[in-house]
Amino acid sequence: MGRTSDAREKILSAARALIELRGYSALGVAEICKAAGVPKGSFYYFFESKEALALAVIDEHWTAQRYDWTRILNSDARPLQRLRQLFEETEAAQRAGQRSCGTVSGCMFGNLTLEMSNQTEAVRKRLQEIFETQVEMVDSVIADAVERDEVTVADSREAARSVVAQLEGQVLFAKLYNNASRLSAVWPNCLALLGARTPQAPVGA
Amino acid sequence: MGRTSDAREKILSAARALIELRGYSALGVAEICKAAGVPKGSFYYFFESKEALALAVIDEHWTAQRYDWTRILNSDARPLQRLRQLFEETEAAQRAGQRSCGTVSGCMFGNLTLEMSNQTEAVRKRLQEIFETQVEMVDSVIADAVERDEVTVADSREAARSVVAQLEGQVLFAKLYNNASRLSAVWPNCLALLGARTPQAPVGA
Repeated sequence: MGRTSDAREKILSAARALIELRGYSALGVAEICKAAGVPKGSFYYFFESKEALALAVIDEHWTAQRYDWTRILNSDARPLQRLRQLFEETEAAQRAGQRSCGTVSGCMFGNLTLEMSNQTEAVRKRLQEIFETQVEMVDSVIADAVERDEVTVADSREAARSVVAQLEGQVLFAKLYNNASRLSAVWPNCLALLGARTPQAPVGA
Repeated sequence: MGRTSDAREKILSAARALIELRGYSALGVAEICKAAGVPKGSFYYFFESKEALALAVIDEHWTAQRYDWTRILNSDARPLQRLRQLFEETEAAQRAGQRSCGTVSGCMFGNLTLEMSNQTEAVRKRLQEIFETQVEMVDSVIADAVERDEVTVADSREAARSVVAQLEGQVLFAKLYNNASRLSAVWPNCLALLGARTPQAPVGA
């Protein structure tokens, strides 16, 4: 039993590292198994297909990220401060990834959206659910800020989408320029997008 | 001569369609040649490698897109209207792509950034140059708007980056949800990001 679940964990962990590094399409099952140090036969014992593995990697990553987002966005801090902390921790995570593997790897979900969403409906659906949940979580913080009269938004769901889109766009640039500091623009941009009334920082400040 | 340049054109055109559909990593030279209807031998006559082909596809796409951006952003319209037209034509192009191939294919440069930028330095460098030029073009429109006192930005270059990041983020969502209408949020968001003083539309309006 111990060995069995070890092998699954090793495959998942190798696949995750390889997907972060090189995307999904370029990977083969043989290569994943080699990196994981498990025989190819065990792959199909745990995963029906490479797509099933991709879904498992996505789920594992989302479980961890959702835990972080929940901790940050449901804290007792003021709503806008919670959003700020989310952006700061995202930047710190990208910086840590860069230190450990040399490059800013970006957002796994954004990466896979642009690489895979038009290729497998199962992956597209899962990524849609994840982004929808992220938007809901941000929406609920924005609704708190609206209640405190700290922001001006006509539609908090649409505003949440715009904040997450801004985050994804800046993560794309952080990856392109291999520079996590690009993410420092997200906070002032979020304030501008939300028409925030408190410590308003102009874009580019 | 005629036949020779035909073959190069056919390879480029097939590669472009396949990259839009399935990304770069999953493609093989044999598949591209088959789709182009040219013998595999002619591939290496025109392109040193698959990477060289990718760069040629990127350059060709950018030449066309740069022509459109220049036409729109250097027109005689008011600065903010030029930006609005850019977003509207981007949405229209994504919608046209969706009609012709069934899915919103997104931004080729954004797609390749997330798929390839950590894999080949030549592609990363080319994509950096393209996004830098896009940011410069938007920056110059924002500077016009600043001169007319229509927007409030502390740093027009940084503001331009934020506008392009917002556009890329919303294109990502348009692709994920296969829904070009997501792009209609870019214009009000751009106004918010620039602290526009004229027809201010709130986020989510």
